Parts: sequence; C-alpha cells; structure tokens
Amino acid sequence: MQKSILDTILSPADLRALTPEQLPVLAQELRRFIIDIIATKEGHLGASLGVVELTIALHYIFNTPSDNLIWDVGHQAYGHKILTGRKDIFHTNRQKGGISGFPNRAESIYDTFGTGHSSTSISAALGMAMAAGLKGAHNRHHIAVIGDASIASGMAFEGLNHAGVTDANLLVILNDNAIGIDPSVGALKRYLTNVKKGTAREENIFEALNFSYFGPVDGHDLNALTEVLQELKKTKGPKFLHVITTKGKGLALAEREQITYHAPGKFDATTGIRVAKDSTPQPPKYQDVFGHTIVELATLNKKIIGITPAMPTGSSLKYMIEAFPDRAFDVGLAEQHAVTLSAGLATEGMVVFCNIYSTFLQRAYDQVIHDVALQNLPVIFCLDRAGLVGQDGGTHQGVYDLAYLNCIPNLIIYAPSDEIALRNIMYTAQQGLDHPIVIRYPRGRGVHINWQLPFKEITIGKGYNIIKGKKTAVVTLGSIIKNVLTAVNEVNASCSVYDMGFLKPLDTALLDTIFTTYDHIITVEDGSKIGGLGSSVGDYAFAKAYKGSLTILGIPDRFIEHATVEQQYAEAGISVASLSLLLKNLA
Amino acid sequence: MQKSILDTILSPADLRALTPEQLPVLAQELRRFIIDIIATKEGHLGASLGVVELTIALHYIFNTPSDNLIWDVGHQAYGHKILTGRKDIFHTNRQKGGISGFPNRAESIYDTFGTGHSSTSISAALGMAMAAGLKGAHNRHHIAVIGDASIASGMAFEGLNHAGVTDANLLVILNDNAIGIDPSVGALKRYLTNVKKGTAREENIFEALNFSYFGPVDGHDLNALTEVLQELKKTKGPKFLHVITTKGKGLALAEREQITYHAPGKFDATTGIRVAKDSTPQPPKYQDVFGHTIVELATLNKKIIGITPAMPTGSSLKYMIEAFPDRAFDVGLAEQHAVTLSAGLATEGMVVFCNIYSTFLQRAYDQVIHDVALQNLPVIFCLDRAGLVGQDGGTHQGVYDLAYLNCIPNLIIYAPSDEIALRNIMYTAQQGLDHPIVIRYPRGRGVHINWQLPFKEITIGKGYNIIKGKKTAVVTLGSIIKNVLTAVNEVNASCSVYDMGFLKPLDTALLDTIFTTYDHIITVEDGSKIGGLGSSVGDYAFAKAYKGSLTILGIPDRFIEHATVEQQYAEAGISVASLSLLLKNLA
Repeated sequence: MQKSILDTILSPADLRALTPEQLPVLAQELRRFIIDIIATKEGHLGASLGVVELTIALHYIFNTPSDNLIWDVGHQAYGHKILTGRKDIFHTNRQKGGISGFPNRAESIYDTFGTGHSSTSISAALGMAMAAGLKGAHNRHHIAVIGDASIASGMAFEGLNHAGVTDANLLVILNDNAIGIDPSVGALKRYLTNVKKGTAREENIFEALNFSYFGPVDGHDLNALTEVLQELKKTKGPKFLHVITTKGKGLALAEREQITYHAPGKFDATTGIRVAKDSTPQPPKYQDVFGHTIVELATLNKKIIGITPAMPTGSSLKYMIEAFPDRAFDVGLAEQHAVTLSAGLATEGMVVFCNIYSTFLQRAYDQVIHDVALQNLPVIFCLDRAGLVGQDGGTHQGVYDLAYLNCIPNLIIYAPSDEIALRNIMYTAQQGLDHPIVIRYPRGRGVHINWQLPFKEITIGKGYNIIKGKKTAVVTLGSIIKNVLTAVNEVNASCSVYDMGFLKPLDTALLDTIFTTYDHIITVEDGSKIGGLGSSVGDYAFAKAYKGSLTILGIPDRFIEHATVEQQYAEAGISVASLSLLLKNLA
Repeated sequence: MQKSILDTILSPADLRALTPEQLPVLAQELRRFIIDIIATKEGHLGASLGVVELTIALHYIFNTPSDNLIWDVGHQAYGHKILTGRKDIFHTNRQKGGISGFPNRAESIYDTFGTGHSSTSISAALGMAMAAGLKGAHNRHHIAVIGDASIASGMAFEGLNHAGVTDANLLVILNDNAIGIDPSVGALKRYLTNVKKGTAREENIFEALNFSYFGPVDGHDLNALTEVLQELKKTKGPKFLHVITTKGKGLALAEREQITYHAPGKFDATTGIRVAKDSTPQPPKYQDVFGHTIVELATLNKKIIGITPAMPTGSSLKYMIEAFPDRAFDVGLAEQHAVTLSAGLATEGMVVFCNIYSTFLQRAYDQVIHDVALQNLPVIFCLDRAGLVGQDGGTHQGVYDLAYLNCIPNLIIYAPSDEIALRNIMYTAQQGLDHPIVIRYPRGRGVHINWQLPFKEITIGKGYNIIKGKKTAVVTLGSIIKNVLTAVNEVNASCSVYDMGFLKPLDTALLDTIFTTYDHIITVEDGSKIGGLGSSVGDYAFAKAYKGSLTILGIPDRFIEHATVEQQYAEAGISVASLSLLLKNLA
C-alpha cells in the first residue's frame, strides 16, 4: 500500500516541503485520521475537524516552533498534535501515560503554551512576542488561535486591550464557528454575525483596539488561508484575522449536531452514527439531577433563576432554559460576570442558582469573596465536575474548591454524598438561607436508579453517622463516601463512618463526640489534602486537645494528569483498593 | 448663620425639590464640604471631586434608591454618601465604627451594591435590571457609573457583552477622566481619547455591542448632564453615556497632581498643600523596598521584567518603569492578563516579577493555577498589601492569600519577616528557581532605617529559630513577627520564637525538632486561620503524632471591616497586647 502524505509528515518541516497542490489531499487524510481514531478512542471531535485546513496552513506558512502557535482552550489541537510528531501515539490520547487531550508544554516543543481553560492565548502569545522583541528576534511570529466563544471572555479583551498599544509581532486568529461547546451568545457574537453578513463595518471593534484587521476568510479554503497568512507574515505589529469555519467539518452528522459531536463518545467512523449505549437502567448523571431538579423547583418557586457561563448542556441547565426561558440564562464564557450578575439578582430577592464547573469557578474567585460572601448575598452556587475529572486531566481537576472556599467567611459549603442529597440540598437552599451556599458534586453518575423521591429538607451544618464501629472513625463528605463504604464492606472493617456533608459550618458537636469516642480518625475527601476537610478536622481536634491520631486522605500536593477517574483515585490513595488496604491494616 | 443648601439635603428627596438654578450652588457647597473633611480626616479625594456634578445630577433626575445606582470601585462615592443622609457622620469615614470608605449595603439603602474592587458595577446593575424586569417593574432604572480604567478590565467587557443582547433598563455611565489611580493605559483608552478629539467614530465600540451611545458630555456642566439624563430616562434598553470629567476638579493642586491627590493624606483645605510629613528618618515602605530593589536587580540581570496591573505608583514599580521603560509595564486594570502575560514571558526565559496586591490576585486565581503553577513556570509574584490593610476595610483585606495559595501544587510561598528579607528573597528568586514563587508582604513600613544592605541568598524552605526559650514555641512567618517579638519582650516570656519564612515548602525538619522539644506550639499569621500556616503545622503535627498542644492564631472566620491596622490586629487577637496577654498567661 502506498504511503499517504500524512504518513510522511514527521514534523512541520516535512509539511513545509509539500507543494500547495498536495495540501488539500493532506487535509482529507488528516480529517480521516482524526475521525478514525476518535471514533473508537473517544475525545473532542468537532473543534479539531473545523480547523484541519487552518492547522495545515499555519504550519505550512509559519516556522513553528520558532514561531509560537497557541491554541486557545486546546479542544481543537488534534490536527496540530498529529502534524507535530505525535501521529503514532495519537491513539493514546487522554489515557493514563498517553498524550494529553490538550496542548501541553511537557509533551512537545510545538505546544508552546498549555491550554484547557479558555481565553488565555492572547496574553500568553503577547508575552512571548514581547520577550522575542526584547531579545531582538523581531522576525519571529506569535500566533493565538481563539474561538468566538472564548474571545468574548473578559480575559481575552484584557489581552487585546494591552496588545493594541504595543508593536508586538502578534497575530490573533479568530476561529469563528459561532459555537463554543454550546452556541455562542452575547453582543460580540451578534456583531461578528453581522460582520459576516456585511451589515456591520468589518474592522471597527478590532481596528478600534488598534489591530490591523484581515478577513473574514473561508477557513476551509487552503488557498485563501495560505495567501492571507503570507500577507500577514509581512505585516508588522498586532494583527487580527477573522476566519470562518464549520465545527465538525467533513463529517455530516458532526456538522449537523454540533453540540453532540463536540465530544461524541464512540461512533461509526463512516456514518458518524454514535454507538448505542447500554440500555440497562443506570443511575442518573449528577448534572441531570441538577438540571431536572431545578426545573421542578422553578415550577414551585417563581423567584428561582438559573445562570450558566457557557455550559447549558454540560451543566444540564438547558432543561430550565427550555422550560423557563425568561428565568434561565447562558451568559457566555464569563464566569466573573456570572457570579456578580447572580449577586445583583440576589439583591432584588431572586433565588439564584449559579452553576459553574469547579475548575472554572477559579475564574470568579474574587467575585465569590467580594461580591457575594462579603455582602452575604444568598446565591446558591452549584459546582459541577468537582473532585477528580478523569481524561480532561490536570487543567480541569475540581480538587481545589474545598480549600479555596474554606477560608471565605459567610459561606456554607456542602458536598452531597449522592444525587438524592444533591436534590434535597437544592430544595433546602431555595427555601432561603441566611448565607450563600456552595454545593459541589462530581462529574459522572450517581448511585440510585430511583432518585426522584419527594424532597426532604437538609439540616444545615449537620453530619451523620452512617456505619457504627469502634476505635476508628472515617470522616468524609461528598460522593467519595461511595469508595469508603465499598471498602468498609469489602474488608469487613470495624470502623465507624461519618458523612459530614458540610465543610462549613463544620458539625463541631458531632466532632466532639467523635473525639471522645475514637482513638483514630481518618478523613477522606476528593479535594486537596491541604486546607480542606482534613485540615479543618485537624484544626478543631487541636482546639479540643484531641490526643488520638488523625490521618488525612485526599488529593496530594501535585497535579494529577489525565487518566480514568478510577486510576486517579488510585494515584491519590482514595480508590476502593487503597482504602481497603488501609482499613484492613487497621482491623 | 444661614443654612447652606447642603445642610437642607437630608435625603435625595430634598435634592429633587431644588430648582435647577440651585444645583450649581449645591455643587460648590458639596465640593467644599468634601475638601474640608478630607483635608483633616484623610481619604480618597480626587475621584469624588470629579463627580460632584454627576452625583447631584443622578440623584436629581433619577428616583434613588428605587432606581439603583452603583458606583464602580467606590472611590468616588463620597458626594453620594453625603447627599444620602450621611453628611453628619461623614467625618467618621474609614474609621473603626464609622462609615466605610466605599459603598456598603449594610450602611444605607442608597448603597445598592458594595464595591471596592473594580469593574463589578455593570454585572451587578444588569442583575438588578433583569430582576426588576421579571418583577414587572419596567419603569425602574439601573445605573452603573464606571471609570475609564475600570471599564478596560475584562469583567466589565463581560457585563457589556451580555447586557447588549438583553432589553434590560440599564444605563452605563463612563466617567472618563483618563486616569484610574495612575493614568489609564491600553487600546481602549487610546480609542476613547480619539473619540473625545472627534477622530474616531463616537459610537462604534459601544454601539457594536448594541448599546445606545450618548455623549461625550461635559461632566461639570449640570445643565448638560440633567438634560442628557432626562433623555436617557426615556430611552429603553441598554444605554451608554460617555461623560468627561476632571479628577480632583475644584482644587487646583488636586487637578494638577492627580496621582498624589487620589488619596493625599492631610492637606490645607484652602491651598491644597499637603501637610509636611515628620522629617525624622523612618523605615521604608515595603512597596518602595520592592520598587528600588527591582531597579537594582534589573541593572544586574537583563532578563528581569516588571509587570503591574494598573498600580505603578502603589506598587512602586514606577521606579523601574522610569529606569527601564522597555522592561517594566503597566498592563492596565487586568490582573488575569497580567498573570498569563507573565507566564508567556517566562516561557521565553524572562525573569518576571508580577506585582499585584494580595486582594487583587483573587482576580487572577485561575491564571496562577492553570497558566503558571500547572506549567511550573518560574514567575515571581510579589503580593503587596498582604495581611490586614487598615482603613480600606473588608473589600481590600489581603488575608486569604496564604490559604488560597497553599493548596496549589508547585508554588513556593514566602512571607518576609522584614524589608531586608524582602530584598533578599527578590535577589534569590531572580537567580532562578525551579518553581514559581509568591512573596507576600504588607502595606506600610518596615522596621529598619538602613535596609539597603548587600544582597544575601535565602535558602528556599528553611525556617529559623529567632529566640530560644522553653516549653512553648511560637511559630510564625511574615512581618507579623514584629508583634510577636515585641510581645515576648514586653512580658519577658520564656518561649522560643521561630520564623518559618516559607509556608511552602514547609520546613519539616525544623518542625520535627519543634515537635520533640516543646509541649506547646502557638502559630501566628496575619492571614485566615483556616488553611494557612496554622493548618499546615497542624496537619504535619498529626502526621508526626505530635501529642502536645497547638494554638492557631490568625484572622478569624469573619470579614474584618475598616479600622486602623492596629485595631484590626486587636480584633483578630494578634496585636501586641493580645499576644502579650497570651504569653503572660503561659509564663
């Protein structure tokens, strides 16, 4: 069998040796290769299919890696990885020990900046450009490729605003496919749509910020792309190229169902049809428990508002957006705004559920402190994807939340032990609390088939004994209790198990009992060992002069890379096997 | 003596009863009142003087507090406070038990949203507007007054971007005086300047975001202001008013020296001349130690870069900006961008000092985790105003940093015990570390007159015994050690004192010795008691089965409001007096 062109590309140097006529053939091969691998290995599909031509054109025209290329968010970097020497290991994508699903500096010199969270590329590329300028390397190019959802995030604006008054050799490429994970929203998106239609002056926003504006260009036309990139290469200073692409390009179903095919799971490589899931009844995803429960509650309580920053599908707030379009909002990729908007709504007596992935609440940390907690506004934060998140890896771990929230006064912090507890705390919170509350729950599924039980109120700050034993108390909160209970059962351990539920307020009365009853305490949490449940129990133990032992289990002080959640539990020492071993040695 | 008009204004209702002709007289009286009080009581002067007319016009035309008025940042809200019933207590501004220097919901129904950090007003006002819309109160108005420095922050853009696609009854007023605390920077500022000169199309950026644009209007012309506000009152949907003001208006020196007169300290109410400071030699401000030291180091090390988000004066990076304008940058009110820009520069081998106030690093928390620590880029963060900050109060406390940074892998966290240690850690860090480092130091002055001593390298992760005693070890870090040492001296306590210096890596070898030597340990920090030094020492104590006692002193789990730093120390139980009492009882 004849080698494909793609097989001959071991690095971008090989790509740059091709004739322009060979590029469309390569594009076809590259697209096919991505589809074939992702069809069985899973991963982010649509974004990478949309930039196949742009990826080829960029490496063809620019001298990567000396010219720095940064892929914002990084969902779209599969083609880039394959063309920069990682074709033969691309099938290890997102697996433990395999390549990361995102650009990663540790993985390749072509990944000049690691991404995962959005809207960082302009700032990073500007930094590289300024450094190159200082080193006298004025001929190097610095390129940020950013989507239309990501460019609407405040951080991207900050980068543009600074870059516009520099002479940095910076090229910002807007990959405009009118969709992030969900369709883009906001005034800028509306403006960009008008630019495409020709009804707004093309240049004004970006020229106003002092960028030289080029485009819009068809992002699937390799000739047009290479031509405009050649021209941009000769243009000094900050430049902006508007490229129009189609997410999922080249796979009909992926083009049609762009939300589903962002990360479709396994599918037929030819037809695109997704592999049917096992139809056995399964416990629900936590996100769906949130999504369906908020609809139930919003039906009863007219003051309930739902807010998501660009994650209506991922958070399942989409159900409320469908049912109550005037009370549920996707506010765009704007966590800071989402939190302070929620605070503003709360000042007027609205009952606001603000749903943000744990890892993305890091983006709105100041707003939680300054706008919500300091004013003691009873916003209800729902943090999805808390704890270990699996294949998305280090950039997306939701393991810092317990620690970074624990130090904020006025906050209630709760981690439901299962999806029924999630339902009930949502019910409890919307009745009206005296404080803001953070409810953090994991990616993935709960444990009950029948979860839509009648609501029950949860007592704020109260923990519970789940298993009665002796000598050792295992103190935990959140869904990780599943591992604890399984381990206790497996080794028939004689310990007691406590579900604290609340990190704040801590159930000190319960802890008082625990201190006087047990010689050994083990805390288990799926958050950073530093500053979370274990630290709080330890601090209180010293305050009460507890003289027994305390063992803190949780996420160790290092970044946990991509793997399955189970593998990550094992790495952190909180898998069923690790806990069983520990409990067996106790007994 | 005849009552002034100002004396008759007990609430905005009284103001609204005035004739238009009386307004300029009131403006004169209000300006005089602000100057007279601030001249002796100190506070933020320039911003409030600049909006005297705007403040009067807004309360005159709109029906506050039913119409919501939000002052972004809040430096400029003195006139607002005086006109809304707080004239007679205005002299208590920023004092313990007195009124806050910022709008504060707990203080007045006219302070509809507490501010302090910038760029929150648009999101908050939009939330209120959306809530009013849902409640059917379509005739209410929602007004955000935001400066030209603050509107360039990403969060403000996020708010505009969302508001532009709503029909919210929102009015954004740009108070454009071309300066924040320092002169504004960035492409948007350049654009706004061109708008004023008439060389750019007035409407384009804000009209592109779907706002109805009005202005520019002379912000000191009460007729023009009331006229345009009347018109805006009749205009539905999101509106943008561009107002041109002069910071410090009405006090010649304040108009001329706008940076100095942002918060001038005591001055002569007639001439504006500042009260001469005591000329006795004093220890330097920490910020100046930073500012002068980075210039010294940058002279020796060409790779050093300095970054500040809009605080060249407050951080004293201005010295490096003057000395090395091509290597030191004010990047605007954009903490997120500042951090990731620093990361980008670091990828190219630059040695970046990124100086951000502790409280404002909360704005860039995600960027510290995701762009710096995860990639282990050796950025050097200098956190000024860490710990208790005094009169700025709850919004500005730098007391969460130790806790929120402690859980981040790869970070080195250091708190210098004095300004010489600050110099030496800066020297050490720029030699090249394997990890990013956070150096946190307080507002105010150090303790040495002669501080510019030759540089000495600091051993990373090493703590020191400072005083040898018995039974009890006081374990601390940072400048709060001053209180500890003074207290030990005052009561002639027999304890030992340890300066850990580093929160991470924790000097576990030293702690091992402490655990085996002492029956009692007291930790002292000027950060949150939850998750900082005390918690880390406690966690390690349990890991090593330490059976003595541990007392954790630090900031309790509540917000500490405005007062002097000494008063705040007392409130937190870490003043010299509190520590003396504790140590005396031990001895």
